[in-house]
Amino acid sequence: MVAEAKIMTVMTREDFQKLDHDDPLACFRREFYIPQDVIYMDGNSLGAMPKAASRRVGEVTDREWGYDLIKSWNTADWFNAPQRIGDKIAKIIGADEGEVVATDSTSINLFKVLAAALMINSDRSIIVMEGSNFPTDNYIAQGLVEFLGRQHQIRFVEKDGVMDAMDDRVAVVSLTDVHYKTGHRFDMHAITARAHEHGALTVWDLCHSAGAVPVDLKGANADFAVGCGYKYLNGGPGAPAFIFVAKRHQDHVKQPLTGWWSHSAPFDFTRDYESGEGINRMLCGTQPIISLCALEVGVDIMARADIYKIREKSKKMGDLFIALAEQKCGEYGFGIASPRNAYDRGSQVSLTHPNGYAIMQALIERGVIGDFRAPDILRFGFTPLYLRYVDVWDAVDILADIMANEIWQDPKYQVRASVT
Amino acid sequence: MVAEAKIMTVMTREDFQKLDHDDPLACFRREFYIPQDVIYMDGNSLGAMPKAASRRVGEVTDREWGYDLIKSWNTADWFNAPQRIGDKIAKIIGADEGEVVATDSTSINLFKVLAAALMINSDRSIIVMEGSNFPTDNYIAQGLVEFLGRQHQIRFVEKDGVMDAMDDRVAVVSLTDVHYKTGHRFDMHAITARAHEHGALTVWDLCHSAGAVPVDLKGANADFAVGCGYKYLNGGPGAPAFIFVAKRHQDHVKQPLTGWWSHSAPFDFTRDYESGEGINRMLCGTQPIISLCALEVGVDIMARADIYKIREKSKKMGDLFIALAEQKCGEYGFGIASPRNAYDRGSQVSLTHPNGYAIMQALIERGVIGDFRAPDILRFGFTPLYLRYVDVWDAVDILADIMANEIWQDPKYQVRASVT
Repeated sequence: MVAEAKIMTVMTREDFQKLDHDDPLACFRREFYIPQDVIYMDGNSLGAMPKAASRRVGEVTDREWGYDLIKSWNTADWFNAPQRIGDKIAKIIGADEGEVVATDSTSINLFKVLAAALMINSDRSIIVMEGSNFPTDNYIAQGLVEFLGRQHQIRFVEKDGVMDAMDDRVAVVSLTDVHYKTGHRFDMHAITARAHEHGALTVWDLCHSAGAVPVDLKGANADFAVGCGYKYLNGGPGAPAFIFVAKRHQDHVKQPLTGWWSHSAPFDFTRDYESGEGINRMLCGTQPIISLCALEVGVDIMARADIYKIREKSKKMGDLFIALAEQKCGEYGFGIASPRNAYDRGSQVSLTHPNGYAIMQALIERGVIGDFRAPDILRFGFTPLYLRYVDVWDAVDILADIMANEIWQDPKYQVRASVT
Repeated sequence: MVAEAKIMTVMTREDFQKLDHDDPLACFRREFYIPQDVIYMDGNSLGAMPKAASRRVGEVTDREWGYDLIKSWNTADWFNAPQRIGDKIAKIIGADEGEVVATDSTSINLFKVLAAALMINSDRSIIVMEGSNFPTDNYIAQGLVEFLGRQHQIRFVEKDGVMDAMDDRVAVVSLTDVHYKTGHRFDMHAITARAHEHGALTVWDLCHSAGAVPVDLKGANADFAVGCGYKYLNGGPGAPAFIFVAKRHQDHVKQPLTGWWSHSAPFDFTRDYESGEGINRMLCGTQPIISLCALEVGVDIMARADIYKIREKSKKMGDLFIALAEQKCGEYGFGIASPRNAYDRGSQVSLTHPNGYAIMQALIERGVIGDFRAPDILRFGFTPLYLRYVDVWDAVDILADIMANEIWQDPKYQVRASVT
């Protein structure tokens, strides 16, 4: 990493405070609980808590569960929460009403849509995926292939090989829009178009996109998508995920997890399965209502924010972070794993360093919460609804101090936690 | 239904109060929030809220999510919650440590274990199920069979035909221990033994058993089981479910939903799937932590209660309910859908009546919360941790009044809600 960013030479902490002062999204920060003395740059892993989520969860337990008991399936409309929240998420990811439900986990939803795509393209045998994708995507595809007797094959490629990996044997191209480690972003429109030229279907994993970058599923003519509720949608730890099926597939789509919530008349209690209408087919069983209602609060906040303003601030924060890091930490051996061009990047910047783990632990102890991904990646997430420009300044300042004074060398920072 | 129960002739409301006074489980009621003027007999559908669940959920949101943020995956041990809660559930259902995880939904877990059983018995093609089972069980099996290209067949039988439905072509017998409508209970030991004689595996759905009746998976030599967290375990609306795999199968068992939580080293982020050890293989993706932590509170209470005392009280309540109903409502055309012998019954009594729906609505308006299952079943659940004997008396008293004065005939009670 070479110190080259001239734009930084004249900037000061006060300039960053000025950016916050002029930030049209600044008003959102007060809707989140952010602990004192914490610079939270891990919203790409677990979004911060909306204050209203705490209140809403209390209402779900005390009034809806505790007081209204079983009636709340009707009176609090628990039963339609997946569709109701799905419709709200649809607006955030460029989908139409009736194309999204909030349900289950990303992994399970990925199984559903991959299986659905293979059933539609039943005369084809190849699944194209990115080998370095977030592992659960690959593991789910591998489990599915194994379960179906290995008649299918996964063609693993890396990002530059995706376009060339498509041919007329490809059933489905399953990619994560924004890469979990590097933040690299695919061209959803171009890849979907190429896939369709070859008769292949697309599955887009939006875990690092929904609420972080403008997503245009409809414009890209995407077929299927899944994504996560607990990152940029601020839905709470392990919040239910979402699943998207383009309207044009909904009349004939099938998925194997045909639980009663996907039935055409679940409360008729008939013996035989008859699939429900539209996106309801992607449901399976009863949903974790408390977690689902917490998710709705995060989604509601996101739905009020302008995703283009979010994107603009996020790109600017990323650029400033890189420039500051080059200026203040250029001599300490950091590399940059993320695209330098903000357009090609999601809402994170990943640095590399051979001592990345220890450096991140030292940062965390100083209140700068990012995370580490093996073998050498330090991830810094930018969540424009609650992160300030001045936080970016302070984070790099603390990083520079940790490097200059070799604070990361303290043995306590070398001890690995079981989960990061 | 003929009035025949002589034991009732001398009993009064005071006698029921005396039973409560002497009830060794009476102390548990104060741990639950029960609304005033409500007799809650629907804990077999949604268990009442433990007061501690409300507190715990507030702690998960405000302290663990809000304040400790991403660190809570380690510091609050969110990551191991499925195994930790699973071990607690194991004690309630007669399983060993390491045989149960709390995760996903009953429907999804059923898909996993049915698929697992079919992979073990891959040379067999028949799944034996009860046609009148809770529909999601059948729907899941039908979806699985369809997905696998209809090489398998579901042999639907009714309860008296189960033993004779087994032969050497049967891969798996999948039954719900206690029937959702009638409360009829299977003989898990005898059926499992018969299945094993034929080389078949067993899947037991414990939705209406766990926390309601003593379950002895180990003693019965059961292979697989699933069950629900939100009924008798009082885990909250749509609480995560559980899944059991007998130790002897854990070295070779596979299931198709191979998400990263089932990987041997999920945080190594390797490309290829390598299955984890033991029961971890039954996990898939990230869990809804708020709902999961609420479940733990319900499970903790249940773990402190003596399941044999619960069973004894539940049987007695059921017997008294039937006897009272016969005495006070014998002339109004009710039938009884549940076994009269308490030993053959779970923790509910189901009456039948051609006007069952309207009668149940009238009961609910008077504060007696049971539920209705088409076409004519009125279900009354007995949850000995928070239901009192005097509630049983009062419930039947109110039912008798509704019948004697034809209150149920009011047109407002005929309007069907979308969900019951």
